Amino acid sequence: MNQIIEARKGNITPEMEAVARAESVSSEHIRGGIENGTIVITRNNRHRNITPLGVGRGLRTKINANIGTSKDRMSIPDEIEKLKVAVAAGADAVMDLSTGGPIIEIRKEILKQSTVAIGTVPIYQAAVETVGQGKSIVQMDPDLLFRVIDEQAEEGVDFITVHCGVTRESVERLRTQGRIMDVVSRGGAFHLEWIITNDAENPLYEQYDRLLEIAKKYDVTLSLGDGMRPGCLADATDRAQIQELITLGELRDHAHEAGVQVMIEGPGHVPINQVETNIRIQKELCKGAPFYVLGPLVTDVAPGYDHITSAIGGAIAGAAGADFLCYVTPSEHLRLPDLEDVRDGVIASRIAAHAADIAKGVPGAMEWDREMARRRKALDWKGQIELSINPDRARKLRESSLPKESDVCSMCGEFCSMKGVSKYLKKDGRKKQAR
Amino acid sequence: MNQIIEARKGNITPEMEAVARAESVSSEHIRGGIENGTIVITRNNRHRNITPLGVGRGLRTKINANIGTSKDRMSIPDEIEKLKVAVAAGADAVMDLSTGGPIIEIRKEILKQSTVAIGTVPIYQAAVETVGQGKSIVQMDPDLLFRVIDEQAEEGVDFITVHCGVTRESVERLRTQGRIMDVVSRGGAFHLEWIITNDAENPLYEQYDRLLEIAKKYDVTLSLGDGMRPGCLADATDRAQIQELITLGELRDHAHEAGVQVMIEGPGHVPINQVETNIRIQKELCKGAPFYVLGPLVTDVAPGYDHITSAIGGAIAGAAGADFLCYVTPSEHLRLPDLEDVRDGVIASRIAAHAADIAKGVPGAMEWDREMARRRKALDWKGQIELSINPDRARKLRESSLPKESDVCSMCGEFCSMKGVSKYLKKDGRKKQAR
Repeated sequence: MNQIIEARKGNITPEMEAVARAESVSSEHIRGGIENGTIVITRNNRHRNITPLGVGRGLRTKINANIGTSKDRMSIPDEIEKLKVAVAAGADAVMDLSTGGPIIEIRKEILKQSTVAIGTVPIYQAAVETVGQGKSIVQMDPDLLFRVIDEQAEEGVDFITVHCGVTRESVERLRTQGRIMDVVSRGGAFHLEWIITNDAENPLYEQYDRLLEIAKKYDVTLSLGDGMRPGCLADATDRAQIQELITLGELRDHAHEAGVQVMIEGPGHVPINQVETNIRIQKELCKGAPFYVLGPLVTDVAPGYDHITSAIGGAIAGAAGADFLCYVTPSEHLRLPDLEDVRDGVIASRIAAHAADIAKGVPGAMEWDREMARRRKALDWKGQIELSINPDRARKLRESSLPKESDVCSMCGEFCSMKGVSKYLKKDGRKKQAR
Repeated sequence: MNQIIEARKGNITPEMEAVARAESVSSEHIRGGIENGTIVITRNNRHRNITPLGVGRGLRTKINANIGTSKDRMSIPDEIEKLKVAVAAGADAVMDLSTGGPIIEIRKEILKQSTVAIGTVPIYQAAVETVGQGKSIVQMDPDLLFRVIDEQAEEGVDFITVHCGVTRESVERLRTQGRIMDVVSRGGAFHLEWIITNDAENPLYEQYDRLLEIAKKYDVTLSLGDGMRPGCLADATDRAQIQELITLGELRDHAHEAGVQVMIEGPGHVPINQVETNIRIQKELCKGAPFYVLGPLVTDVAPGYDHITSAIGGAIAGAAGADFLCYVTPSEHLRLPDLEDVRDGVIASRIAAHAADIAKGVPGAMEWDREMARRRKALDWKGQIELSINPDRARKLRESSLPKESDVCSMCGEFCSMKGVSKYLKKDGRKKQAR
């Protein structure tokens, strides 16, 4: 089963139907979007235990949570716990970015236990294996990388980040650009180092057809990575970044023609007044392909609060047309996230995505807020808490400080405007009708 | 001393000089802005112990923290502690919204101990006193309200919210509009109830000159309140709100002519795609007067996280030209904020204001981010933490999970892209030069 090929034949697959139902749109909207490349369904055709995830035009803005070990912190149970916390908090997808410990075992367990789409960055495993052989990353054998991609696809990974746009050309543009932070993408950095040291082209670019063949077979969605994404505001929207994006646009065309679903990854650190421009240029250069943004973070100065800096950027990006937000946790730039960070990161991203969906006019988005407003007006506390993005937290905060009058809150107490005004407006309304 | 009168004479006051120095702009920019009403300096001419606060065009976006008691929670030491936490976290101004306990004593203590501008909403005290006399708020004597305003001005309050735009006309527009949440402004609700019950005009509107006389004498800045601000997304940017804004624009003219500094208050709950429109219409209708926004919150569904929903709206509002952001804490809609909420609220607002300042091109804003980026690139952890918006939090997060290699972090560990790339780019750079 391959969604693009079915879409081209005019067939509605069960996955398209499931996505259409979940999104309150027609199955034809989904089929058409897959056919023209503006929608992807990220589900490996071997990964049966997850809900197929639709990403793209006219659909709810999705959010991804990154989990995974590093050499400094590695534990399978911890990662499974993070997976569960992320899904419970509302993540639509989870990426396993493990680079420490038994990474294959961790991934297999995550694939087994997850109910949502799972993504990976195969170059991480290739790097870990290369280093494990006592070599440096720049000595990585391209065949090893393709073997890893093939294995992960066979295991059931739903989408993979591949930094095909880190090419000799974009590396050269990076050099002539001059940046403060050069490359901050780990995968992007590996490829750049490999290209420069071997004086050779990126194997994922040079042997792109080999990559497409694997992806097509398992219907793995390619998430074309932005190795040149800016790592600070000062580096945003520069020639290296846009050069890579042009290449990603071309690669999107090749993949789509070959029957492979594609998303494009985007920045990064971007000043608030450049966020919309970044979305528009991606949509133009990549012919409306789904845009998967990391952040964007609208300032560099708030480590410890980057769930907030990225919620700001993500909301603006989403409203401007970004389709998929990668969460950022409060720990970003400081340490590997813990469970609390994962939850906070997912909720902050969901807030951003939902705010964006209201602007996008996504079916049902505004109705959630309208219903919350009705319950607020009715002083229906149980109803408000139920409808909150995280009912547990709302309940805890309210219960920590209950007011003497049970139908108000401890901020305004007896002076609750919610409570006072209605009767006056009503009274007066009757007076007017009597005239 | 009255800033507008001095500005009109072409005089640079010590306050204008202090603001110019703090903002890295010319004193003439400040004087000119005060003369044409696009800048205010919120300092009561009797309140000597604070730093004069400049708000308006070309200046850093400011943030305000609301503190104060309610009937359910009242303690002077708690409020002084909140004041200190807010100022330490970086609040530019603090509003005392106390409605419970010894509110006059609380305010006097706050005025004495604060190093930043203090604002109030005098109608709250008038309401508390009226209720204290065994009456209902709708029985409030207008003279009592003016007496309270005069007393607070004499005590040294720097700016006051006055809901002069809640008039018979805007109340009528509210009724014909039809809203889910009617009025959510406490002060706005008091005035509306008073107007309807007494079938009379708002005394602050009808006797506006009396208000101006007091404000002029003490150089108290009027913050023209938005009693008709939307309390949910569905009510945003409606006829009641814009009707009030038109009136506020007219009142701004009268005040400015009379030598009284004016800010305009704004929403509230606003969908992300209406935020910029709200700023532009205010700037047009109010001839560029400083805009003081509460939030805006870009969704209603996230109680417990409204510091995030308002950081999103505040950043967009600021980038579009809002001058002053009123913080919203995680406790909003649920309870009176505690110390932790105050700190979290201030930091979230500062992030929004700073992200906006980068877009506005405020002197020095981008340089902060640029310097942080340099320290990141240099793996200068001490420097990064020093430069963080809240160094304590950044330090705690990093120290909670130190990596084995001391110059990286526990997220990427040995695979730190920061660390790897530079040497390759440099090596290659030398090669190229040798050609």
